[in-house]
Amino acid sequence: MKLQVAMDVLTTADALELAGKVAEYVDIIELGTPLIKAEGLRAITAIKQAHPDKIVFADLKTMDAGELEADIAFSAGADLVSVLGTAGDSTIVGAVAAAKKHGKGIVVDLIGVTDKVTRGREVIALGAEFVEMHAGLDEQAEEGFTFGTLLTQGTDSGVAFSVAGGVSTTTIQSVQKAGARVAVAGGAIYGASDPAAAAAALRAAII
Amino acid sequence: MKLQVAMDVLTTADALELAGKVAEYVDIIELGTPLIKAEGLRAITAIKQAHPDKIVFADLKTMDAGELEADIAFSAGADLVSVLGTAGDSTIVGAVAAAKKHGKGIVVDLIGVTDKVTRGREVIALGAEFVEMHAGLDEQAEEGFTFGTLLTQGTDSGVAFSVAGGVSTTTIQSVQKAGARVAVAGGAIYGASDPAAAAAALRAAII
Repeated sequence: MKLQVAMDVLTTADALELAGKVAEYVDIIELGTPLIKAEGLRAITAIKQAHPDKIVFADLKTMDAGELEADIAFSAGADLVSVLGTAGDSTIVGAVAAAKKHGKGIVVDLIGVTDKVTRGREVIALGAEFVEMHAGLDEQAEEGFTFGTLLTQGTDSGVAFSVAGGVSTTTIQSVQKAGARVAVAGGAIYGASDPAAAAAALRAAII
Repeated sequence: MKLQVAMDVLTTADALELAGKVAEYVDIIELGTPLIKAEGLRAITAIKQAHPDKIVFADLKTMDAGELEADIAFSAGADLVSVLGTAGDSTIVGAVAAAKKHGKGIVVDLIGVTDKVTRGREVIALGAEFVEMHAGLDEQAEEGFTFGTLLTQGTDSGVAFSVAGGVSTTTIQSVQKAGARVAVAGGAIYGASDPAAAAAALRAAII
């Protein structure tokens, strides 16, 4: 199972600093959606140039203009680009076409999708590399949210999936047991007083 | 009825050039999602500084972290910020809280929402200023898409709405008849050989 750090910071400088601290412990470096909206594609380029040996994930959360948005992100240096599962199939197909052109991959973020199992299978059939079983920052704060549901949906889908939204040293082994391809840690790393130590602990918890 | 230009260009320079040509004919200047992802918040600031008398709409299409994303866009100079109708209610509530703090407004983009009438009423109750009856660029290219359905859904919702996705000199009067508060024109303006003339013609078609 790969480890992905989600960098929910707002400046390229902060992202470069965080990535510099944690890169050696992670496989995938994710630029969060607010960071990309704040800084633009240059943030993707800066991270890829600083960490050419890492998989760079641009969390675009594309809802429309799938081919265009994916194309400009891949051109800027992204290896993986996210599209929303709530987007129409033609948006996902467009993004997949851009990924094929660049020899890269599309991840479909299932945030906000009610039936994540069915939609997960659909978008894999459309050419997505894997899906993200994801509870958003807002959703995690809602009453009744349970992390276990995300894992069950991932296992039940039978397709390649990552898990995001509550991954910590306490939960990461359950993520691996559920069969996830990637565990995504955000606040557990960037919110820690020592992000490098937090990333190292997550890495060590993966068997 | 107000006229909004959706600037689906990819650089701040192109956006400034387009806005300079068409501003006198429009009420609302929209920075498209790909433009914001490409250039970041600085594009919003540049447009607001160049056109302080216009309503600047940042089409963030926020899916998560509603309060944060709206807050940084308002701080950068936006007067209106979009959130996706497929987002969870807590995301919309967060964005509305940011809008209240800044004395600005949230627009909920109903792209990808199946029942636009019901969701439109829900998000207005949550504090959105108006909803956007919107067929995306990809959706418009799909077989079976009809512009009339968007208008009917807007009228049936009974709430304040804009219409985006197919507005042209041929259709703009039907948009006004349907009771829209705002008509959003994208390709009909930026794709025209003379964008200023195209915007002027749309303005003239509004009674």
